[in-house]
Amino acid sequence: MKTLAELATSQQLTYQGNGEVALTAVATLEHAKGNEISFLANPSYTKFLAGTKAGAVILTAKMAADYEGNALISDNPYVTFAYVAQLFVKQQRPVAKIHPTAVIEAGVEVGENVSIGAFSVLHQSVCVGAGTTIESHVSIADDVVIGEACVIKSGVKIEPGCVIGDRVILHPGAVIGADGFGLARDKSGWVKIPQTGAVVIGNDCEVGANTTIDCGAIEHTVLGQDVRLDNQIQIGHNVIIGDHTVIAGCTAVAGSTEIGRNCLIGGGVGIVGHIKICDGVTIQAMALVTNSIKEPGSYSSVSPLQPTKQWRKNAVRARQLDQIARKVNQLEKKLND
Amino acid sequence: MKTLAELATSQQLTYQGNGEVALTAVATLEHAKGNEISFLANPSYTKFLAGTKAGAVILTAKMAADYEGNALISDNPYVTFAYVAQLFVKQQRPVAKIHPTAVIEAGVEVGENVSIGAFSVLHQSVCVGAGTTIESHVSIADDVVIGEACVIKSGVKIEPGCVIGDRVILHPGAVIGADGFGLARDKSGWVKIPQTGAVVIGNDCEVGANTTIDCGAIEHTVLGQDVRLDNQIQIGHNVIIGDHTVIAGCTAVAGSTEIGRNCLIGGGVGIVGHIKICDGVTIQAMALVTNSIKEPGSYSSVSPLQPTKQWRKNAVRARQLDQIARKVNQLEKKLND
Amino acid sequence: MKTLAELATSQQLTYQGNGEVALTAVATLEHAKGNEISFLANPSYTKFLAGTKAGAVILTAKMAADYEGNALISDNPYVTFAYVAQLFVKQQRPVAKIHPTAVIEAGVEVGENVSIGAFSVLHQSVCVGAGTTIESHVSIADDVVIGEACVIKSGVKIEPGCVIGDRVILHPGAVIGADGFGLARDKSGWVKIPQTGAVVIGNDCEVGANTTIDCGAIEHTVLGQDVRLDNQIQIGHNVIIGDHTVIAGCTAVAGSTEIGRNCLIGGGVGIVGHIKICDGVTIQAMALVTNSIKEPGSYSSVSPLQPTKQWRKNAVRARQLDQIARKVNQLEKKLND
Repeated sequence: MKTLAELATSQQLTYQGNGEVALTAVATLEHAKGNEISFLANPSYTKFLAGTKAGAVILTAKMAADYEGNALISDNPYVTFAYVAQLFVKQQRPVAKIHPTAVIEAGVEVGENVSIGAFSVLHQSVCVGAGTTIESHVSIADDVVIGEACVIKSGVKIEPGCVIGDRVILHPGAVIGADGFGLARDKSGWVKIPQTGAVVIGNDCEVGANTTIDCGAIEHTVLGQDVRLDNQIQIGHNVIIGDHTVIAGCTAVAGSTEIGRNCLIGGGVGIVGHIKICDGVTIQAMALVTNSIKEPGSYSSVSPLQPTKQWRKNAVRARQLDQIARKVNQLEKKLND
Repeated sequence: MKTLAELATSQQLTYQGNGEVALTAVATLEHAKGNEISFLANPSYTKFLAGTKAGAVILTAKMAADYEGNALISDNPYVTFAYVAQLFVKQQRPVAKIHPTAVIEAGVEVGENVSIGAFSVLHQSVCVGAGTTIESHVSIADDVVIGEACVIKSGVKIEPGCVIGDRVILHPGAVIGADGFGLARDKSGWVKIPQTGAVVIGNDCEVGANTTIDCGAIEHTVLGQDVRLDNQIQIGHNVIIGDHTVIAGCTAVAGSTEIGRNCLIGGGVGIVGHIKICDGVTIQAMALVTNSIKEPGSYSSVSPLQPTKQWRKNAVRARQLDQIARKVNQLEKKLND
Repeated sequence: MKTLAELATSQQLTYQGNGEVALTAVATLEHAKGNEISFLANPSYTKFLAGTKAGAVILTAKMAADYEGNALISDNPYVTFAYVAQLFVKQQRPVAKIHPTAVIEAGVEVGENVSIGAFSVLHQSVCVGAGTTIESHVSIADDVVIGEACVIKSGVKIEPGCVIGDRVILHPGAVIGADGFGLARDKSGWVKIPQTGAVVIGNDCEVGANTTIDCGAIEHTVLGQDVRLDNQIQIGHNVIIGDHTVIAGCTAVAGSTEIGRNCLIGGGVGIVGHIKICDGVTIQAMALVTNSIKEPGSYSSVSPLQPTKQWRKNAVRARQLDQIARKVNQLEKKLND
């Protein structure tokens, strides 16, 4: 429990209204009760502000001026909400212990206050930093190094030699360091190219559930600091992703591509291999990036949604687009003559 | 074994031909033997009807009129095939037992006739309804409630507090309730928003292999009744999916979007966040839905497939489409003047 | 360690320069040291050749003519690199042993020199060929047959009755033989169609991390010989894939589709069900294939990437494309009259 005044102090912010209101959790504007604090960041939820029963609302000064109730005043209500929510979430970290069924092979080094769940396997010479939690059914191969205060969720697999920074979260089912997709075509069939690099993940990164990051072919696949990957993403071998870049679910990045810092890559995006995307690029959902991008900004490529009946007619024309354009140019010429 | 006449009785249907033919399994028209029953639902397989060796075929009355052989007559041969196939599949359910390696923590409640496979972990206060099968390597976190007669396949992970209805099937590798992708951008980097909601799955739902359904940020992510999700799907936090909606593989639904009842969402579709799709909407494969849909019907968005050489020419023009359209309007004006 | 001359002999190739240079590993042109061998296959890396410190470089005769340093001469440097890299990778195969925690049920047959990792489960009557490695947390259901010299990585799940050839690699988290997505719509809801076929995988195939291959509905889902699937791919029930076909990550193939031999399917591609793609087809990344393809060659369908501002204007016109085309035809007619 925190009072509104205490919250304001802890966040170095001001408030309006009753500073003594007791708050115990965060909630949405629509469903908050009197002991809960809510927030308004997405304008499409403004309609719920007037009727909210929240004990307090996190608002900008401008929004607060039009609101009669208790408010915590922030330049960035969404960030403030994130910090306040973190305050209220009770620490769910289990008491640090190594489950008796866990298999710890020779040469493993484990820091203080590390938890290892049931049926997890740490192969030879794995090193785990202090305060890290490894849940159940985790497989960590030889020579992997994991930093401090990480959370390795259930069923994660980490292949040999990968290096994970501090405060990294690997969500359930993520696979770090599986073989890159490297094949050379000989006359009789495909020849597998050994994938001997690893994956190196910087501090404060997050890797979503069932996301896969392949190891490098020779050198490493690298995530910088504070890179955030959603679920079901595929990162190919030798990809390099810059600090603070965020990638939404189901996106695929092919091998040896380099993505800059502070990029926002939408969901279901495809990025081909061996290209370079500069810092500060936004790619809209489901776009396909086939060439390097040298200018920051927002990029899109998808055809717009249409009723299927209308789409069928337009799709026929899309196949004739070059002919149509040529005809227009001819008509123009004819008309000008 | 069932005779054709017995099958007709059990399905409350009529038949033509020899009611005494003994049938022991279902099979395709092309490969069926004399003791097998087949069906014709997809017109592209009509060519196999005349030559089939099936002991009987499930047909509409109209199709049966043109067929000399034994037939089970149904208004909906595909549905009848489904029920008949269920009859013939021998119950593969293992004898209910809890494997000695399973870890059952404090406060777990398990109904009658529950199976738990090797190396599965049920954390504190999990509740499992009667007749449910949990296979091997399953991880079920604190306070999860699972209904009756469910099948939780190998390697499924269910995060804290999720609620699963009755007769639900979770296929191998599915992840239920991993953290939603919630981040707020502060000056120094991304701040994680605690994801404290759960996933609530109604009765008779099916979740495909390696599909991920994120927990809600504050409130829950919800699947109604009889929702069927194929493999490799990503469902974001706070998504709500209505009863009987079916989603094909590799589709991604971003956070806080609401999908109505009886929708058919194709494979590889992307649906952005914070929108609403009404009941009875069909989305064709790989379409991107960027706005709410308020009218039932079928929607598409993908560019049509073309030989790459032709595609290259048309793609150049696609980038100039607005210019072309403007030029056409100018020509029209010029010509009318 | 091998000298350049020894390598040339082992690969039945010639070399130029100092045959006595000792080589211990492969490396990239950019980072190779004097005891490492590199290669040049992708022209975009030519810029690194002049400055490389590699002890030797694998080059075509033509490229070698312009290069002063040591070179291994090959008609196909990439294939030669693959074989040389295989030579240098030290065999990481663990000493064959069955971990004491592994669960081996009744009727399991295991060949010579088989490894089984911690917490893996081989259900009844599984058969594993000589020299196969099964890592940790693997679940293999009843009656599965696995050939010789396979590698089944951590967390793989194989469902009942599947058949895996020799020298097959299944990467972490792959799911082989989960239920196909078969549903028939009855008045009250969806009726599940039992999926009683299996998955049959030929020799020398590779299945990527978290890729899913569904079992057939009645007959089998089949991969031929030397089929290579990247990560996060979804293969529907009863799909048939021909020899030497390669599919990149995140592609989805819907049920009952047949893909020929020697096809190259890009990443993020969608292929609808019940169609046939002939031998020798290349599908570019993220294309959607909605009809059978009867001619070998390269096919594409995606809209080209554009700055979002420009894209918005063009997207409006894409919805009007049929109208634009009609107007152009009218103008042409008017002008010709």
